[in-house]
Amino acid sequence: MEHGQLRKKEGTLQFHDGKASRIMPVERIKELHIFGEVDISKKCLELLGQKGIIVHWYGYYGRYVGSYHPRERSSSGTMTLLQSRFYEDLSLRTAISHAIIDTSYRQMLRLLKEQAHLLRPRRLLEFERTFQLEQGSPPELFLQEAALRQRYYRLLDDLFQTTPLRFEKRTRRPPENEVNALMSFANTMLYQLVLSELMTSKLDPGIGYLHATNDRQYSLQLDLAELFKPYLVDGFIFKLIQRKTIQKDDFEWDGTACYLNAFGRKKFLHLWREQFKQTVYHEHQKRYVPYRELIRLEIYGLQQHLHGAPYRPLSGFDWP
Amino acid sequence: MEHGQLRKKEGTLQFHDGKASRIMPVERIKELHIFGEVDISKKCLELLGQKGIIVHWYGYYGRYVGSYHPRERSSSGTMTLLQSRFYEDLSLRTAISHAIIDTSYRQMLRLLKEQAHLLRPRRLLEFERTFQLEQGSPPELFLQEAALRQRYYRLLDDLFQTTPLRFEKRTRRPPENEVNALMSFANTMLYQLVLSELMTSKLDPGIGYLHATNDRQYSLQLDLAELFKPYLVDGFIFKLIQRKTIQKDDFEWDGTACYLNAFGRKKFLHLWREQFKQTVYHEHQKRYVPYRELIRLEIYGLQQHLHGAPYRPLSGFDWP
Repeated sequence: MEHGQLRKKEGTLQFHDGKASRIMPVERIKELHIFGEVDISKKCLELLGQKGIIVHWYGYYGRYVGSYHPRERSSSGTMTLLQSRFYEDLSLRTAISHAIIDTSYRQMLRLLKEQAHLLRPRRLLEFERTFQLEQGSPPELFLQEAALRQRYYRLLDDLFQTTPLRFEKRTRRPPENEVNALMSFANTMLYQLVLSELMTSKLDPGIGYLHATNDRQYSLQLDLAELFKPYLVDGFIFKLIQRKTIQKDDFEWDGTACYLNAFGRKKFLHLWREQFKQTVYHEHQKRYVPYRELIRLEIYGLQQHLHGAPYRPLSGFDWP
Repeated sequence: MEHGQLRKKEGTLQFHDGKASRIMPVERIKELHIFGEVDISKKCLELLGQKGIIVHWYGYYGRYVGSYHPRERSSSGTMTLLQSRFYEDLSLRTAISHAIIDTSYRQMLRLLKEQAHLLRPRRLLEFERTFQLEQGSPPELFLQEAALRQRYYRLLDDLFQTTPLRFEKRTRRPPENEVNALMSFANTMLYQLVLSELMTSKLDPGIGYLHATNDRQYSLQLDLAELFKPYLVDGFIFKLIQRKTIQKDDFEWDGTACYLNAFGRKKFLHLWREQFKQTVYHEHQKRYVPYRELIRLEIYGLQQHLHGAPYRPLSGFDWP
């Protein structure tokens, strides 16, 4: 987040913020994420290139701007071929889509049960009982997922009836009330985070499984975000509103369209970054892992699946 | 080649070399190649990101260091799936590899025949007669291509016996004489040009056909460069040396390694850019097309082939 200059100094990196210099040992860096106004010299990029370090730049709202890739590339042709093979094989593609919807459902249910005291027990039981993911082609699965999401939103509306702001129904382009505005903004931030991690991985963000591959979007980004939405977006914004951390005056209106205003955005981004610094104990990793790194672990999990391992999204840890 | 700072200024780019500033209209830039010691600010990279401009950095000897890629994707998931399908299908992959080698051979022959008066007629006839591309898997085709290239280099050596500088044999990492230094530098520049065009196309540079897809390099960049090397690299440097435009004192030595020196590099890059501004009449396009655009047309040709059209590299025009 700091402003300053990044230079090469005696074979390593030196960051100068206008007042003092700090040595950044290049051997311990895997990648650089630049949020502040940082000048970077060519000598410095040459050094980063030699060490195979990727640099990502982000704009003011943390929006991903672009990346510097050293000669060595991050995405891999071999992995792209594997990704394509799993896409073309209907049973392999169906299995991945199935696992994503199933995990997504479990995450929705987890969030609803956590707030069960605010819900009518019968509605929750009904949500749980009527979910039965049937076999089908990926487009059919996609329709089932849409139906599941409809029913989930109805329960979210029940939840938000207990908070100062209402959800009503999901509205997009534009969001038509505060909760929808917050949900849209948080979704965008989640997509960017997933995309940043995908950009430094060997996977091609363009080839998705549940979200059909097309020319307009990074489908794999949407697939992976699906897993994290219930906890990191829906649950997060529910708490923000329930605790009145974000309130009516953090929003502005443009006709019927509702958005976070500049102050609301700043507050949200601070809380959003705080959320991603939180850690969770990971059984497979045998250590506390920041939420942000969970996304990378999901990417590794999918890569391993392409190499033959079973696909078990969000396994090995439990949200607190 | 210059040293200085690149900044964003009133919505466009400003280059400051320590003495004076120069405006670089961002609308007219497609990509930046940075050879000098240039500092670049984040605001500047953000602007380049918005405009979809790629930046390439080169080291002191013109060695490619790395690239900045803006967020907006050009590659398309659908196209990547098609590319993979053609890679996985052995007969489709073989057909592309075959067409590349065949075109490359024709281009070599064209260059040699153009200078036939400098060659022993028997050697040229032999080169032409012994070429018989046999059917085989892509790795076998790759070996045949290597053998063809060996024989071609022997004739190139004959050609360079008539110029002030000798070719002898192809040496790389490091190049061991002036002609090899020039060839390596020109190849690097051609690869970057092809990569830049691929980066703004729908194709994934990582999936090549003649050059097997692997994790280390952009194989498709190598495939396409193959078509252009005889004319745009070999023929070009032959003329530079024959006409004494580039001479012995444009090089410097580091042990047994030979490189263009700063002055030679500057001269070369000027001539290289001039070459790419030249135009050629294109039958299919019914207009004069700059050499640079020919690379893009090849990319379109390959894309159309993936959509079902026959693959005919470098068709529709003749080098002057």
